[in-house]
Formats: sequence, C-alpha cells, structure tokens
Amino acid sequence: MALPDIFHNRRKPLAEPNFLADVARKDIEQTSRALAKEIIRTPLLPCMAPTYGRSKFLKRENLQPRGSFKIRCSLNAILDLAPAQLSKGVYTASTGNFALGLTQAARARHADVRVYVTETAAKSKITALRELGAQVVAISFDDWWSILCGESPAGEDGTFVHPCSGRAVIVGNATIGKEIVEDLPDVDVILVPFGGGGLVTGVALACSLWGSHALVYACETEAAAPLRSALAAGGPVEVPVDKDSFVTSIGVSTVLQSNWPFLNAMVDGVVVSSLEATADAVRQLAKYNHLVVEGAGAAALAAAHHPFFTGKRVVAVLSGGSIDHDVLASILTVDGSHAHG
Amino acid sequence: MALPDIFHNRRKPLAEPNFLADVARKDIEQTSRALAKEIIRTPLLPCMAPTYGRSKFLKRENLQPRGSFKIRCSLNAILDLAPAQLSKGVYTASTGNFALGLTQAARARHADVRVYVTETAAKSKITALRELGAQVVAISFDDWWSILCGESPAGEDGTFVHPCSGRAVIVGNATIGKEIVEDLPDVDVILVPFGGGGLVTGVALACSLWGSHALVYACETEAAAPLRSALAAGGPVEVPVDKDSFVTSIGVSTVLQSNWPFLNAMVDGVVVSSLEATADAVRQLAKYNHLVVEGAGAAALAAAHHPFFTGKRVVAVLSGGSIDHDVLASILTVDGSHAHG
Repeated sequence: MALPDIFHNRRKPLAEPNFLADVARKDIEQTSRALAKEIIRTPLLPCMAPTYGRSKFLKRENLQPRGSFKIRCSLNAILDLAPAQLSKGVYTASTGNFALGLTQAARARHADVRVYVTETAAKSKITALRELGAQVVAISFDDWWSILCGESPAGEDGTFVHPCSGRAVIVGNATIGKEIVEDLPDVDVILVPFGGGGLVTGVALACSLWGSHALVYACETEAAAPLRSALAAGGPVEVPVDKDSFVTSIGVSTVLQSNWPFLNAMVDGVVVSSLEATADAVRQLAKYNHLVVEGAGAAALAAAHHPFFTGKRVVAVLSGGSIDHDVLASILTVDGSHAHG
Repeated sequence: MALPDIFHNRRKPLAEPNFLADVARKDIEQTSRALAKEIIRTPLLPCMAPTYGRSKFLKRENLQPRGSFKIRCSLNAILDLAPAQLSKGVYTASTGNFALGLTQAARARHADVRVYVTETAAKSKITALRELGAQVVAISFDDWWSILCGESPAGEDGTFVHPCSGRAVIVGNATIGKEIVEDLPDVDVILVPFGGGGLVTGVALACSLWGSHALVYACETEAAAPLRSALAAGGPVEVPVDKDSFVTSIGVSTVLQSNWPFLNAMVDGVVVSSLEATADAVRQLAKYNHLVVEGAGAAALAAAHHPFFTGKRVVAVLSGGSIDHDVLASILTVDGSHAHG
C-alpha cells in the first residue's frame, strides 16, 4: 500500500488585526462550559490497532450527537448571535453536518433557518434538514460557492453563519484541541481532517494557547488535496477533485481565501493519504476499535502511519461517522489485511 | 417487527455461605483501581437513536481493549491468583474474548496458559490465542462443557479460571455496574446480555452494594434463551439453540448450576428479543451511534424497546464488538428502517 505523502509547512506570521488575535484560553474554556449541555466531551482513547512503532490515540468526535464535531461549532455560532441577529433568521451554505447542527441549535432558539445547498445535494440530507425545521434552497454550485466566499444570496436578509470560518466557529472547534491537550499533555502530533480548514485552525489555536509543543498536520486524501497544493504554491490554487471517491465530507477544489492566512500561520503541514490507505483505516477503526468513521476521519488515522511520526505520540481526530452504510459494507468486505507502514 | 418478550423474576433469597456474601463496596472500588491501568472506564453516553418514549444510555464496553468487557473479569481473575497458583500455569474453557484477556494478562505475568476449545472453534480465534502465547487444546463439546461444570481435564494440573463464575470474575464485572450507578445515579433499568451469567451477576451485585433502585434484566435472543426457561421452570433446563444465528457470543443450551442461585437471587427478569430486532439494533448502533457492536450487545438495546420500559431511564450494556465483518456488512445492507416499539 502506498505510504501517505507528507508536506511540511513553516508557519508564517499572521497579520493583525485578525478575528482570532484576541482569543484567550478563558474564551475557549467559557465556550466549553457553554457547549457542555448539548455536546459530549468525547473520549480520547488509545487506538487498538497495529501501532507501526508509534502511540496512536483517537479523539472520537464521531460519538457526538449527530455523529460529527460540527455540533460544537454550529452551536457556538448560534450562541454567539444576539437576539436581533437571530430574529432575522440565519442562513448557511452547507449540505452536511454543519447545517444539521446549526438547524437544531437555531430552531431550539426559535430562529428561522435557511440552508443553501447545491442542486446535487443528497436527498437524504435535504430530508433530514427539513425534518429538523430548515428551509432548504437548492442553487447552482457557483452560487453556493459564492456564499462561502462572502456574497449574500438574492433576497436573503438573514444572518450568515459560515460553516468553517469566523471567530465563533473556530473557537467552538478549539474546544476539541483544549480537550486533547488536557487529556494527553505530552501529545507530539495532532492529525486533523481538512475540509474547509475550520477544524484544524481551531485545534491549532488551542495548542498554541495551551503552550503545547504538538505539531498540527492537516489530513487530505488523493481524491482532493487543495491545502497541500496551496502550501506548495504559497496560496490557494484550483486542484482536481475525484467526485466519485467514498470520501465525501472533505475535498473541495480550493482553499477559501478567508481561511488561508490562518492555515498558513497555524498548520505544520499536510499529509495526503491514498484512498486505499484511507479505506484500510476505515476497516481498522471498525475491526479493532469498534467505531464507524467516515472517510474524512479515517484519513487522519491513515496519516498517522507516515514514517515521519514513528516514535511519536499521535492523536488522530475522528471528525465524524457519516458514512453511507452501503459504502461501509463494501469497504468491510474487501480484504485489506496486507502489511504496510 | 416483533416486540421483545419479557419475563419478570421475583428475586429469591440466596443461601449463605456463598462466594459473594462478603463482597463489599470497598472490594469493588479496590478492583477498579487495580484494573485501571489496563482497562478503560468506558463512556456511558446517551443513545442517539429513536427513543420510543424512554431515555436510553449505552455503556460502551465494546470500546475496551480487545473489544469486550471480558478484559475486566479475566484480568481480575489473574490478579487474584497467588504466585504459587500462577506458577503452575492457568487454564480455562472458552473460545472467545475471555480467553484472549486471560492469556494476555497471564502471559504478562509469565504464567503458562492452556485454553480448552471445542473442535468447532473458529480458526481465527485459535490463531489469535496462539499469537498471544496460549497453548490451545481442542476437545469435544461434552468434555469442554464438563470443564465449565467443574471437572478437570485429563493431565491438567494448572489453576482453573472459570470464564463466567467465581468471585474474582464477578467482582471484575461488578466494576461495570459501579461505573453505571456512579455516572447515572438515577438509572431505572440496566439491561445486560446473558451468556453464562457472569456479567449480569456482577452488575446486579454492584447495584445492590451501591443501593441503586435499578432493575436488572438479562437479555437473550430467540436463538437461545436458557435463562428465560430456567426462571420459568424454577431451575436450569435444556433449551434448543439456533447455531446458525448471527448472535454468537451468547446463547448456550442451559444455565450453569454454579451460577443459577445467584441469577435467581439477583436478576429482575429476562427480555428475549427476536433476531430481526437484534439486527435492527446493530444497524441503529452503527447508524446513529457510530459503534460496531456484536449481536449479544445489540440484544441489550433491542430489549430496551420493550413497552415495560416506557418512560424509564434505561442503560443497555454493549458487552462487546466482536462481530464478523461479513455479517456486519450483510446486516447493514438490509433496509431495517421500519417502525416498531
């Protein structure tokens, strides 16, 4: 099996002012307390699988309500809004777990929710969003991407909540990093799936504020590696995307400009895993750890097997468990028991 | 889908002396501390699945090292032995997770281990036992059952460790009950898979010592329900066993005489679930909770859906995650999304 590819980044200074410049430990601690009633402090437990000469730990965000870390940032984004902002309704562009968490949190606070999705979004997700009380609006991919880049959709006068950017979202995700460094103070490496960059930025922020020496690597797969290419090119570039891959919750064609400076300043590198190694990690998580984990989360475990991490204490953040059961079944019934690493 | 069948038991007085009569809270607390380096205090978290009008919590023993609660009782059984007993080597009759845990614990203490298995035991388990350092001896089912009933195999001079009976085994399992009542003091019902009875006895013992009002129900499936029949008959009887069921880690043909008095004294009843409902619980655990759980563990969640538990706070003990991946894949790809409960 092909080893993961690693690309190291020398962290660049972050220009000030920026929306994370004044975040302090107490802000993240306060956020943890605010989220505590609706989220789980997920267990950080050793990975029960072949070790390949390193200590592996799993931060099991797939055990969160709705099966993903996104409950943290979406809930925090809603808690961060003033009543006047909530009263106009909120909107986001997302088809995944972020929109589910946002809808749940906003509807519990009697706010209207509009979720803009691409025309190709999965019917099952649209149904789930509607059942939770969201108004779902299908638009073209280009219009959808424009919303993520900051444009308001025509006729929209609600409050925008970005799924992977903004202070409240990053601070919500930083609670994961806080828990990791509290539970494993001598962690050497934290591996974080890279979708839009909100998760890895939050984890890196917490490491910095807690004085952890941990290196923070983003994890992509060969299906799409926009951060790997951005770091190599010195800025966001367009990359090819394999839309037929089983890895569905990460892998867009470029890094958002709004997130790029933070990523370039806070990430120690990127590990790109093959789809075969990622599928093997899905199997290992089911077989040895009895966990159902989506491709994005499994990519973090696949990355942990890179020789660069030999002898280290490595945490893989299992971002979520949203994997289609037909896909999981087909991965489980392939024999992936060949040696590697 | 057929509702689970429930049978209520009026607890009978337990004759003294018996090997649990002098167990006190401090013994279980001390055992918890002794086990802490090698086991996990597994999370007790809400079940993320349709509630059917009750609060469901999952005690996730499938997240233990080697994927089963058996690490607790097997390790405690070894810790309980004197050096002279260990020096003769230990033996057990088991083909499952108990033997794996026992072998690991005993080999770490430089004791020889002999595991007696039936001639039909799965090759994969025999291989795993040998890799851990056990000597594996295949014998007939009748001879194997005789060992469980207390007979010594010919030529064996080691120390016998029973997989589901004996003080150290029950006290090791009682640490699970302790954690449940500590984490959810107002638990109403605890549902425990019934294989040989060691787990449910341990959990009930802890409830009693901690003064919990929780009812403790054993869980079987229609593939084999020896405890249901024993309670109905007033003593162990032979029952038919569906050997082709996907539920493999529970379901023998009768209740061991050595465990019967404890069961009759400490269990509030039995819930027998259909195989269809048990498979549906496997799906719910994967889909909503992102957990891989074996049929025995899923039977506890299936039992939780009985109308008798409406409005209650119910804990299902997920005993383990040892499910063959082909079996899991076939369960996942069946559409089990019909309503019930």
